[in-house]
Amino acid sequence: MSEDTQSHKEKMQERQAQQRKKVAELKDPDKGLVLVHTGAGKGKSSSAFGVAVRALGWKQKVGVVQFIKGKWKTGERQFFDRLGEVTWHTMGEGFTWDTQDRDRDIAAAQAAFGKAREMMESGDYDLIVLDEINIAMRYDYLSVDEVIAGLDTRDKRTGVVLTGRDAKPELCAYADLVTEMTEVKHPFKAGIKAQRGVDY
Amino acid sequence: MSEDTQSHKEKMQERQAQQRKKVAELKDPDKGLVLVHTGAGKGKSSSAFGVAVRALGWKQKVGVVQFIKGKWKTGERQFFDRLGEVTWHTMGEGFTWDTQDRDRDIAAAQAAFGKAREMMESGDYDLIVLDEINIAMRYDYLSVDEVIAGLDTRDKRTGVVLTGRDAKPELCAYADLVTEMTEVKHPFKAGIKAQRGVDY
Repeated sequence: MSEDTQSHKEKMQERQAQQRKKVAELKDPDKGLVLVHTGAGKGKSSSAFGVAVRALGWKQKVGVVQFIKGKWKTGERQFFDRLGEVTWHTMGEGFTWDTQDRDRDIAAAQAAFGKAREMMESGDYDLIVLDEINIAMRYDYLSVDEVIAGLDTRDKRTGVVLTGRDAKPELCAYADLVTEMTEVKHPFKAGIKAQRGVDY
Repeated sequence: MSEDTQSHKEKMQERQAQQRKKVAELKDPDKGLVLVHTGAGKGKSSSAFGVAVRALGWKQKVGVVQFIKGKWKTGERQFFDRLGEVTWHTMGEGFTWDTQDRDRDIAAAQAAFGKAREMMESGDYDLIVLDEINIAMRYDYLSVDEVIAGLDTRDKRTGVVLTGRDAKPELCAYADLVTEMTEVKHPFKAGIKAQRGVDY
């Protein structure tokens, strides 16, 4: 064994010991976590659907309520429809800039959140994705207070992922985990169209 | 219609017009894009699997090569195994700190990348996820030059997502899109264990 290999081995053994010690000190959470995916970069919704895939892999029960996006045909929607294992509700009004009636938008967001609250309280789900709900709060279709009140009444077993840019600070303070996706380099800026599969 | 509703309608109409103009000016890319998911935050791999789900929703062909993570049983692996639609290869050595033989790690990474290159060149895939490959470059198991050379020989139709923290600057310069996931608030820091479904 070369010297390099030997020092690599020692370093890796030390790292392994540290890792085991760290893990042994951690405790299981007593309830499903609240995760927020925000920021101007890509990956907020797709990573929520990746988390859904993980949960399904462990045979957990997953629900999705999509705020804002409705009319657009998305790959994720087609995939999960075909799979038939996920309860899926869409607010059903298309992008906000496709509707021009604020009162209708508010009513749609409220109805969608009513559905979400029902699912969170039911105890039937391990994971619920509230996709783009931060946008509904940003436009004041939903208040952050009512969203937090809804999260508070969720069943102990249920984790919730809330996605969308411009997450409210009060929601971030309430959440167990907040991840910000930052756009470092984006093809749209270079004049390239959104692509099936990658972008929707 | 109230004044508020009226001004909302005008704002939304203007936004819609701007959006349509922007989209009309965009061009379709002439090849599959190279996407990098990096940063210290969560969501790098899960969002790659979310993109995989989108692609599958559009009946695209998806392949995954996982670097580093091998022994650990993950939700995503179980899910896609059960689904049976994704070609999946794992380097098969567990986390780096589980192996203590640098030469073996290098050989395993090289073999995995050989498989990845074969898949990229084949023209059989719309999307290939090279999960945690940035870690393999960070440990010098793979050079960034050989990874870029491999990406260069990929079939025109094939998009590639490369994940893992500490992406090499040369790779980011080469990529079409780079997203950085930043940890704003993390439950591990509060002493909570990784959870099935959410974390793996």
